[in-house]
Parts: sequence; C-alpha cells; structure tokens
Amino acid sequence: MDFSMEKPTLPKGTRDFGPAQMAKRQFILNHIRQVFQTYGFLPLETPAMENLSTLTGKYGEEGDQLLFKILNSGDFLKEADTTLMGNRDSKSLASVISEKGLRYDLTVPFARYVVMNRHDITFPFKRYQIQPVWRADRPQKGRYREFYQCDADVVGTDSLLCEAEIILMITEVFQRLNIADYTIKLNHRGILTGLAEVAHAQANESSLFVAIDKLDKIGEDKVRDELLTRGIDREGIERVFSVLNFKGTTADKQSFLQTQFAASPNGQKGLREVAEVLMLLQRYGGTAEHVEFDLALARGLSYYTGCIFEVKINHVAIGSVSGGGRYDNLTGMFGMPGVSGVGFSFGVDRLYDALEELAAFPQETTRSTTVLLAHFDEATRTFALGAAARLRARGIATEVYPDLVKIKKQLEFADKKKVRFTVVIGADELTSGQLTVKTMETGEQQKMTLEELIQRLG
Amino acid sequence: MDFSMEKPTLPKGTRDFGPAQMAKRQFILNHIRQVFQTYGFLPLETPAMENLSTLTGKYGEEGDQLLFKILNSGDFLKEADTTLMGNRDSKSLASVISEKGLRYDLTVPFARYVVMNRHDITFPFKRYQIQPVWRADRPQKGRYREFYQCDADVVGTDSLLCEAEIILMITEVFQRLNIADYTIKLNHRGILTGLAEVAHAQANESSLFVAIDKLDKIGEDKVRDELLTRGIDREGIERVFSVLNFKGTTADKQSFLQTQFAASPNGQKGLREVAEVLMLLQRYGGTAEHVEFDLALARGLSYYTGCIFEVKINHVAIGSVSGGGRYDNLTGMFGMPGVSGVGFSFGVDRLYDALEELAAFPQETTRSTTVLLAHFDEATRTFALGAAARLRARGIATEVYPDLVKIKKQLEFADKKKVRFTVVIGADELTSGQLTVKTMETGEQQKMTLEELIQRLG
Repeated sequence: MDFSMEKPTLPKGTRDFGPAQMAKRQFILNHIRQVFQTYGFLPLETPAMENLSTLTGKYGEEGDQLLFKILNSGDFLKEADTTLMGNRDSKSLASVISEKGLRYDLTVPFARYVVMNRHDITFPFKRYQIQPVWRADRPQKGRYREFYQCDADVVGTDSLLCEAEIILMITEVFQRLNIADYTIKLNHRGILTGLAEVAHAQANESSLFVAIDKLDKIGEDKVRDELLTRGIDREGIERVFSVLNFKGTTADKQSFLQTQFAASPNGQKGLREVAEVLMLLQRYGGTAEHVEFDLALARGLSYYTGCIFEVKINHVAIGSVSGGGRYDNLTGMFGMPGVSGVGFSFGVDRLYDALEELAAFPQETTRSTTVLLAHFDEATRTFALGAAARLRARGIATEVYPDLVKIKKQLEFADKKKVRFTVVIGADELTSGQLTVKTMETGEQQKMTLEELIQRLG
Repeated sequence: MDFSMEKPTLPKGTRDFGPAQMAKRQFILNHIRQVFQTYGFLPLETPAMENLSTLTGKYGEEGDQLLFKILNSGDFLKEADTTLMGNRDSKSLASVISEKGLRYDLTVPFARYVVMNRHDITFPFKRYQIQPVWRADRPQKGRYREFYQCDADVVGTDSLLCEAEIILMITEVFQRLNIADYTIKLNHRGILTGLAEVAHAQANESSLFVAIDKLDKIGEDKVRDELLTRGIDREGIERVFSVLNFKGTTADKQSFLQTQFAASPNGQKGLREVAEVLMLLQRYGGTAEHVEFDLALARGLSYYTGCIFEVKINHVAIGSVSGGGRYDNLTGMFGMPGVSGVGFSFGVDRLYDALEELAAFPQETTRSTTVLLAHFDEATRTFALGAAARLRARGIATEVYPDLVKIKKQLEFADKKKVRFTVVIGADELTSGQLTVKTMETGEQQKMTLEELIQRLG
C-alpha cells in the first residue's frame, strides 16, 4: 500500500455484501421471492431517486429530516436566494438546490406507481418489491443508512382472502427458512378502536394506541401512568387492562370481546373480520398454530384500518421480522382516493441476524463453487479444461485454477474459497481416467470417473 | 383524481420497471447470473453511496461532473464559506456541503472493496456485481440517469485462461438468450501499440486510438484527416490503414501481422496472447465461430493493457452489448499496486432492447401467474381455496380471484394479467371433480382432475 494515499472507507452506516453474506442473503430473498410468486405477486422496481415533491410530507417531520437529498447537477447556486445563503438557512436553501431524494421506503414509490399507471394496471394488483431504501438516521447496531425492504401488497380489493394468504405466505417462508418457533400476531384496528370506546377514550384514541404500543418495553405501570397523564380516567384504564390482560385461547378472547364490544360497531367489525380471516385460513388448509390473536398489537396506528400483523421469532435478540396490515387510502396522498389494500414486509437484515443466531442457514449457503480442478502442469491443466467444460455443461459450478502453481497453493485456495470438492489431476488420472475427488468438508477422498462425478452432482 | 394535487412524476431519465418488464429483465439477469456462477464467479454488492473522495478523479473531469452528489444531512451550511456562497461558486461549495455521491460505475466500488478487504480475499478473486449506477447525463433515447451494470472480473491472476473463459461465458449467455447472430470482437492493447510503432506515432498513441475508435462512425476519410491534424505523417497513416484494412481469416491476420510487427515487442506480445487465448478456447471445446480478430477495436484505450473484447449483436439498432478487457492496475487509484485482472460487462438495457427487436424473449416471460381459479359463489370459492393450496404446494403460481364477482370480470382479469390457465369452478365441478382448464393463449378448453392439472404443470 502506498500510504501517501488515504485509505478508502465506506460511508457511515453502509455495508458491502461480500460473497459469503450474499449467499446467505440470496438464500433468504430467493425463498421469499418464490413464495410471493407462487401466490401470484409480480415484481416491481422503482428508481432510487424520487422527486422530493413525491417524498416530502409523507413520513412526518422526523421522516422528512431523514431523507437523503441529491444536489441538483450543474450550477445549482445560480438561482439560489442570497438571503437564504447569508442566513445559513440550510433547510430553506435545500429546497432550492435539491429537487430529488433517495427513496425512504417502498410504500410511497408504490403509491406513486399506482397513481401514474392507474389506467394500465389490472386490479386487484399484487406486487412485490425488494429494493434498498436510505435513511439519514444515526447509525447503530442493527440500524443502517442503506438497507433492503421487501414488501408485498395487494391493492384494489377488500377481500379478506388477502389477509389469510398473508398468513399462509409467512408460514411458508418460515418453513423454507427452517424457522419453527415464531408467532404471527394478529389484531384489528376496529378492536383497538373498540377498546378506546370501551374506555371512553375516543378523543384520545391515538394516545391510547401509542401507549399500548409501548407495553412490551416499559411495562403496565408506566403505561397506566402515561394514560392518566393523557387524560384517560381510572375507570377507563381498568377497562383497557381488563381486556389487554385477558388470557386465553383465540376462541376465549373472541367470546370475551363479544360481550365487551356489545355496543361497539367498530369492535364488532374487528371481531367479525378476524374470525373470517381465521376461517379462510382453515379453508386453505393452513395452520393457525403460529397465529396469536394479540389484543395489544397496535403497530403504526393511524395508517392501518383493518387487520394488523406482526411476526416475532421467539427466543432471538431482535425477533420482530415482519409486519403489515390493511389500509384504506394508499394513494390518497397523491389525490387518488379509494384504493384499499393490504400489505406486509419482511425485514431482511433482521431475518439474516435471526438465522445466524439460530444457526439455521443450510450448509449450501456456506459453500461457493462446487468443483475445483487442480493440476500439475500444462498437460494436466489441458485435461482439466475439457473436464470443466463438461461439468459446466451440466450446470455444475466449476473452476480450473488459472495459474500453473504448486498443488499446495491450489488446495489452500479451494479451502479458503470454501469449494465443495477438489479434483487433483495428475499424470495417472490422465491415463486411467479415474479421478480422485476430495470432499473439502470432511477430507474424505473417493475415486471415480468424470462421468460418475457428473452423475453424482448434476 | 383530486387535481388540486400535483400529479406525481418520475425524475428525468429514470424508469419504473413494472411486472412485464421485470419478467423480461429477470430472464436476462438470471441467465447471466447462472453462467457467472457456473464459472465460479461469486456475487458482490456495494452501497449506492460512496464517499466523494472515493469517486472523484476516477472518471476524468467530465465524469466528475456527472456524479450525483448527496447533500450532507442536518445543518449543512453551518461550516460553509461565506465567500463561496457570495460568489455563487457551486463547484467549490459542493465539496463543502456534500461528502457522498452515488456510484458512477461498478469498477471503482469493486477496486475500493478489494483494497479494503485485501487481507481477507482469496485470490484469484472472481466476483460479479449486478447493480444500478447513476449518471447526471442528459437523458436521451436509450440513455438513462439510472441504469444497471452487470460486471464480472477476475483479479489476482494474469492467466489467459480467464480471457478464454470470458469468451466461453459470452457464448453461453447468448445461447441461453436465443441470440445466434453476434460477433465477439477481440483485439489486444499490444497490437494497438504495435500499430502506433509501425506508424511512428508512439508519441501520439492515444490520439491514434481515439481516431481508430471512431472508424465505424465517421469513416476512413475523416479518420485520415484527423490523424494528419494530430501530427501523424502520411506514410504512417498509410501503414495504419494497410493493417486496419487487411481482410482475411484470423490466421491470415496473424501471419500478416507477424511480418508487420517483426520489430515490435509489444505487437509480438499481443499476437502471442491472442493466439494463446484462441488455443485455450479450443482446449475448452469452445467455439471460435463468433470470434473476430478485429484490429480496429480500441475501446477505452488507456485503461486496458492486454486483450480487449466487444460483443455486437448483428442486424439490430444498438448492437454493442458487452465489452471488457485486461487491466494491470485496478487498485492503483487507492494506493495498492500490482493487481492485474480481466473483466467484462453486459449492458442490460441494450440486451433488453435487442431481444425485443429480435422478438427473442421466450413466451414464458410474457405470462404471469400460471393458474387463476375463478368461482361463482362462496361454495365454489371455498373449493378453490383448497385447490389453490394444493397447486401452490407443488410450486405452481396460483391465484384465487379474491372477490365474489361475475365470472366475466374474473376472466377479463385473467386475460389482462396474462395468466396462463384459467379454471372456472362451478357447481358441476364441485360434484364431479372434473375441472375445465382454459388455455388463455389459445382459448382451448380441456377437462381434467386437479391431480391431472398438477401432474401437467408441476
């Protein structure tokens, strides 16, 4: 290294994904993609850059501040206001010298796409989208400035079949990822609204939901204090916790709530829809084994209008790896009302970390090329070229060590690159056609012909 | 639409890829990816943002101006120089208020990755990378501000096996993409240098290469004029064109150049290496049928130091869809000398356009979900749910129309979504188990059981 030059670095909060991580990420994403496709979801990709007019005001004030903005190209200061510059008014100047930003999530670009293509889209429209998003957040463990989102949404129908299929898809993804111990939490906005009604807290609905959302983190006592501060009376709080603390099966909860919500049409609707989703799930032959009717699940409050989901992998550090729900007004932000839909997303980084923690990545994701052909000289390398061509023709990932170097170096290479099998081709092999195939994992060696090796791996 | 709101738009030069385009793009990219993997290349992904110190100065002055820069987050003007602002000095101010940019290509991020991970990488390192890049270029037909690059490189070896494998990979990709009429142009930097020597134009080498590069576009006469202006004498120009205009087979060209380059070690080396690549290709059992030894191929000049490739699909508008070559100093820009490698890339947008023009996309890329189950009422929809579950369990992409609507609407949906088969489930089907399967393409209908349908599609 010429240290007169600064060593290159990565921007804070960003990562390279080298081959080893890519293999594991692709394992996750390929399964998710396959499941999405099996259920009729089709892929969409939108550009990294969106107009700031598309992004701004969609994520609250805090979100706006986390948008990465792109400097206008060329002479961006030409039109800039001298006063703004003189006052060092970064915020106002930004809107003059920058008109594009990096996408913050996949929902707003999807809504924009639906609005722009509303005449060509066939509704109900099932799309999935797996792309990175960017947030100028303070980086910390498990929080990055660039990370992948992985969303699936159905828009243009309010059929609860979609909710049942989301549960089926989650179940199938987890089965493929070898994750057995997880919980799909299910709740409904109507039930939360019913809860506010029961507590006579309709006016404080969102305070109530925000507080409930924190139960896991701060505990019941602090939530009670917060609710008092927010103007909900003691009797209301008692009624809220008599519901939230109710223990029992889904059926128990349903019949308990029937009584509680006797006078709440919202609560009734929530109960009815949750029951229908569970019935449809059964008709699909799906299992409700992992489903928990969780009356305290409040996720993101204002956005969702129907069922709400959250998936937790049990007994791992950051278990919440998926979530979603039904909304009534995806494209209202762009002046197109009445588009109802339901969507959910997987957190790829969290799934990755959870699979590492559970040691659940299959062996195949830790191996790279299948066969390395090692050789002693020009003649044996020439033999290797023909053998490589035949292996590759069967789709078997194969390398010939490119240089004429000592066998030891070639085997070290195979070991470090985590090749599955190494075949050392010597003069004997040239004449006999019997190859020695070494399984790198175990060190075990076996004699076989090229044809036999192809049969075994092809 | 509420037209009090501005209709959302896309930033200039960017595109959405809807399901129809995605299916075709994935067809191309999956084949490329599979071929790369079969040859032992492993995936790498780098972040969209790089430090501007990593990017600046790597693409020439013109390239620097095409970088998309990210505005520093927070109060970016805090430290800004009042004079720069007062002078409206956009260029100098940019370096103060922006420290990150979007990647311009995949080569510089790859070089950065190699330097940062040099102690962990197993060399020779074969990586491929398929990611978008961004350039603040003036958008025009076929030129976008966000587009995908698709690179494969081997670094850490100067073995010509790599060059031969590049030809093999290109051949295999084209075979999988159903493209038969194409040419892999092959030349060598040494041959171009030899040509400069023969023309006594060593001092004007790069002018010579730039002019030769334009032959296709502006023709021989104008290139001759340009060379004269650049100070190459008439005799030299004659010698250049006696080589460039030489017609014949590869063997003819090789023996002709042997004489021409008798006194040029660079030219000799170029000839020797081209011959070795072709010999290795033959030993791999590969075909040289599409390979053309093109003495006028000069691509990108200064960067390449060995073989140079360019692939042209014949008889389409924009035929040049792939190119690359050997370089000696990938990471020199970051102070790590001596990393030799060879790489090439596919132009995904151009391949896409060429396949459209040749109508070479296979049928499967124009279809979406495989089976739609249509129904008349609650009872038939319930039957459909169970059937969908069984089809999906075999990996067959299946949808149940979610709402209880008229059959006509469901069939229109199937037609517009380009579903392959529609199964209309009526009361008869419920009792007989004989389903009517309609092939949407042909309108043909066939009776079969669910099991038979699964057998046929699974």
